[in-house]
Amino acid sequence: MVQVQANAERALQDLYMLREIGRYKTGVHRPTLSDEDIKTRQWLLDELKALGHDAHIDGIANVIGYSKAPGKKLLCGSHLESQNRAGWLDGALGVVYALEAARALHDAGVTDVGVDVMAFADEEGHFGSMIGSNSLVGRMTEEMMDASTDRTTGTPLRAALARAGYADKPRASLEPARYCGMLEAHIEQGDSLEAEELKIGVVTSIVGIWQYNLTFKGVQNHAGTTRMAIRKDAGVALRRVCHQIEEQFPQVAAPRSVWTVGHIELEPGAPSIVPGGATMAFQFRDADPAVLQRLEETITAIVADENANGPCEVTLENTTRGVPARMDGGLQDCIEAAAEAIVPGKHVRMPSGAGHDAQVIAQKMPSSMLFIPSIGGISHHWTEDTSDEDIKLGAQVYVDAVRRMLMD
Amino acid sequence: MVQVQANAERALQDLYMLREIGRYKTGVHRPTLSDEDIKTRQWLLDELKALGHDAHIDGIANVIGYSKAPGKKLLCGSHLESQNRAGWLDGALGVVYALEAARALHDAGVTDVGVDVMAFADEEGHFGSMIGSNSLVGRMTEEMMDASTDRTTGTPLRAALARAGYADKPRASLEPARYCGMLEAHIEQGDSLEAEELKIGVVTSIVGIWQYNLTFKGVQNHAGTTRMAIRKDAGVALRRVCHQIEEQFPQVAAPRSVWTVGHIELEPGAPSIVPGGATMAFQFRDADPAVLQRLEETITAIVADENANGPCEVTLENTTRGVPARMDGGLQDCIEAAAEAIVPGKHVRMPSGAGHDAQVIAQKMPSSMLFIPSIGGISHHWTEDTSDEDIKLGAQVYVDAVRRMLMD
Repeated sequence: MVQVQANAERALQDLYMLREIGRYKTGVHRPTLSDEDIKTRQWLLDELKALGHDAHIDGIANVIGYSKAPGKKLLCGSHLESQNRAGWLDGALGVVYALEAARALHDAGVTDVGVDVMAFADEEGHFGSMIGSNSLVGRMTEEMMDASTDRTTGTPLRAALARAGYADKPRASLEPARYCGMLEAHIEQGDSLEAEELKIGVVTSIVGIWQYNLTFKGVQNHAGTTRMAIRKDAGVALRRVCHQIEEQFPQVAAPRSVWTVGHIELEPGAPSIVPGGATMAFQFRDADPAVLQRLEETITAIVADENANGPCEVTLENTTRGVPARMDGGLQDCIEAAAEAIVPGKHVRMPSGAGHDAQVIAQKMPSSMLFIPSIGGISHHWTEDTSDEDIKLGAQVYVDAVRRMLMD
Repeated sequence: MVQVQANAERALQDLYMLREIGRYKTGVHRPTLSDEDIKTRQWLLDELKALGHDAHIDGIANVIGYSKAPGKKLLCGSHLESQNRAGWLDGALGVVYALEAARALHDAGVTDVGVDVMAFADEEGHFGSMIGSNSLVGRMTEEMMDASTDRTTGTPLRAALARAGYADKPRASLEPARYCGMLEAHIEQGDSLEAEELKIGVVTSIVGIWQYNLTFKGVQNHAGTTRMAIRKDAGVALRRVCHQIEEQFPQVAAPRSVWTVGHIELEPGAPSIVPGGATMAFQFRDADPAVLQRLEETITAIVADENANGPCEVTLENTTRGVPARMDGGLQDCIEAAAEAIVPGKHVRMPSGAGHDAQVIAQKMPSSMLFIPSIGGISHHWTEDTSDEDIKLGAQVYVDAVRRMLMD
């Protein structure tokens, strides 16, 4: 049997190098289509060409390296951009592992089967919702491209692509028939693996994210002269709804359900003015569609109660109702077998609480994910980290899983 | 006895004219030292000079018209600038009534006693806390001037004064010995007068405003992968404190106490991130120092409880601890007598829930305030309004009160 083995130290050095591009403290600040992001895309393109891949960057900034192997192919990758001032491994890890798998096949002289390497554009949602992988599966229209802007700077996506020199390139389409499957590696972004002293998570499903904007309409007034009894304080109404969420959700949620109020704004937001308006962003996640449905019924009932009791008007607007994605059972078996071979007993099957490009690709073909531990479970913050040892073990398991998917 | 009577229609026409300077819908947008604000100051200066007053604008934008009468003098006025996109009468009413009182004395041929007219700069707090009247009483240092910036635009106060041409002028000082008292008229900014079908409020005291910044420190994390049990969500902690305020304050407050959460911010404020930090602005008001003390003890205990129970750290920082101001009894009697003469039975003694320049002047000499009704109690919003009839009745009562204060 051909030996296909990761050069784990090489993968680690690539990750160190990427951390220097847009470094922020011990993390990175590398928003989509920033100078630093463009630099990492060019680096990946050059590496893939050097490996002999047919590589290019498409019209929405996906970096794609097609293997020239005639036989079975696996699609491997993740993303290169980061959240603002966030962690160094979120995204980059999965791209570097994918590149390492392609290199390991190359080093082993494997030419009949191959790995296509992808850095999906903007998984972190600076310009939209996983626009790179959605473009690949045909769910990103030209109208959506026109409307998309950077959530921080307001720069239109079209302008940012033009600045990078990608605007005139065609957008790639996924050809599911080309692949036996898709594999994405990622840090766990939670503390389950660390808490159980495990090294590998074999992802069973990716949760659905249901997201809402709540708008509260009261009456703006003077905070000194308006008696408590006649106030219509939109902020008080908002907090009453939040209180009900915090009281009721634990009763109806499943053990791994999560819910979050990530944003609150009071209008006009001055110390001496009774808020006449308020908005909040609310979301919940679960891998079970029935649980998601139950949670939506609960928030709907809470809002209806608040409207019935007054004095403010509340509207609940759904903005995302993501379908949970199941990971392919056969591919999970390959990851589990690789983990058992390299870190016996130190792996577990688990759902992913975060969204990933794999859930978009899973709409079209069998997909899978592998997690490595996150120190303290920290994510989307520059203190996010994973030990060198765990990064290297993960690379070994990943490459062995790729070998099993392609060659067993 | 000399007849001194308001020309109420003239006062109303002046108010209409002022509404056109910076008009916003049916209100005005006339922030301190904006072009529109400067225009109104120049108008008042010209009117006062035309009346024969010794008038000028001082180095902090106070407009001051000194009467040349040799005898008793009363200080009358309010402010010309508005909150952003706010009401047309808040401030302007008290300035126009003061001007009308000076004109009425002039029209009646009264020369032995007089009214000094003032438009105190920036009562609305664009650059600080009643910086105009505080400057007059010697509580605005050069260092405070240096540090002051516009809360909306960030423009330094010094630069805004220089642009208006006021920077090189001396700042005026209040000479309490010059006056028998101070009178400020204002809309009620609440609904008490309207609800009781009354026309005049005789202000007994101005509430103390105690203001706080609360800061919540948790751990920023991923909203999908961080289990509910291990979250340290700063927003949840903030809402728990708010819930306790809403539960406990009604138990310890006095009937006219008010409390307000005017501003909330979650950090970083993204839908998919568990907030690692949160801040809120909280204030309460009462005319009784003992009640203010009790309310502070309550919020302090709520914060201590939250810190004791965790998982977030909360800090409570007091930023203002305003002393309630008592209005002068003799001046109140003059206002009441004038009201009884013109709108018999339709007046009431009441505290002011809002802050006013009169509370600053009251630190140095006997001061008083007269309220007219606010339609629907609306304040600090462009829909603020008062009927023409009530505005004219108020002018008559005001001028008659001035006559009683100066000539009885």
